[in-house]
Amino acid sequence: MKIVIVGASGTVGRAVVTELEKNGEHALIRVGHRQGDMQVDITDDASVEALFAHTGKVDAIIATTGNLFFGPLNEMTTDNFSIGLQDKLLGQVRLALKGQHILNDGGSITLTSGIVADEPIAQGVNATTVNAALAGFVKAAACELPRGIRINLVSPTLLTESEAAYGPFFPGFESVPAARVALAYRRSVEGVQSGQVFKVGY
Amino acid sequence: MKIVIVGASGTVGRAVVTELEKNGEHALIRVGHRQGDMQVDITDDASVEALFAHTGKVDAIIATTGNLFFGPLNEMTTDNFSIGLQDKLLGQVRLALKGQHILNDGGSITLTSGIVADEPIAQGVNATTVNAALAGFVKAAACELPRGIRINLVSPTLLTESEAAYGPFFPGFESVPAARVALAYRRSVEGVQSGQVFKVGY
Repeated sequence: MKIVIVGASGTVGRAVVTELEKNGEHALIRVGHRQGDMQVDITDDASVEALFAHTGKVDAIIATTGNLFFGPLNEMTTDNFSIGLQDKLLGQVRLALKGQHILNDGGSITLTSGIVADEPIAQGVNATTVNAALAGFVKAAACELPRGIRINLVSPTLLTESEAAYGPFFPGFESVPAARVALAYRRSVEGVQSGQVFKVGY
Repeated sequence: MKIVIVGASGTVGRAVVTELEKNGEHALIRVGHRQGDMQVDITDDASVEALFAHTGKVDAIIATTGNLFFGPLNEMTTDNFSIGLQDKLLGQVRLALKGQHILNDGGSITLTSGIVADEPIAQGVNATTVNAALAGFVKAAACELPRGIRINLVSPTLLTESEAAYGPFFPGFESVPAARVALAYRRSVEGVQSGQVFKVGY
């Protein structure tokens, strides 16, 4: 399959690339904000349109990217809150809305959420909201996508690779290696399910 | 209690006003976009700040308002999608973020979702996303609100009063009279729970 992965240089993205390339059966286009085979700004319509004009038709679109705002609720502004709405939420939604038109029949879209969708953490109100929204988007979009196109969401817990940086925000949470998370993307791309949230390490 | 209700002139809002005023134990401030005791544009920070500067301290904030976009997924643009993000989602979040500071100790915030959060309908991708996001917001915000302040979400099915207009979009859904939905707002305002979604008529 010809697969576009946006966020290919991130911790999850790199693991997904490794997983999907290991048997040589897929051709991956690695996309990043500044790195990769191609670049894209997921917050910009024209940038995403230019990306897909360059890729042409593909069999799968994977997004492992998106920024959120973390900070205490009692100091949070609407501008703070908009960061996650515009980036991780609308950025991934934009990839799906525009990407649906360049997918081959039977293709798939796989987006990325996170355990905070279901398990709130301190300073994580924006993250829970955005990740819960993505679950809603995938559930509803799966009902309307034509031509056998599927859409799923991967929601990992804290990555083992990120424990040093983010562990203190996840007290008592078990972590999961990115390589295990990457398997869920393979399930989404090569499987038959749609409208699902693949939770990893919950 | 002194209660601000934003969206007081809508079908749900009017029923909530009737319910909460019937025993004479609450003083309601009815807020609308163009009607009511005061006006507010929930998409505008300054407008919401002006509202709360006028109301002063209150015991409860209720929002029964917010626009969504309805349309087929395969024609949906990011501008279409932003309608619900900016209005029903960020509009209600704005009322909560700014409203937390004018609530008395033990006060409450009650926002409004809808059954489409859980049960997708045709052309409803924006609605499912936004309503699911609100559930995430309330779940996470409840963990951080100080001074005994609570937050809940009311998620009604199709209103009986709206059957003529929206019934065709909800095939096989049972409807519920707005007066029953209004009870859930009383549960939220006068009860002890927080971080809950009160589903009505599911």
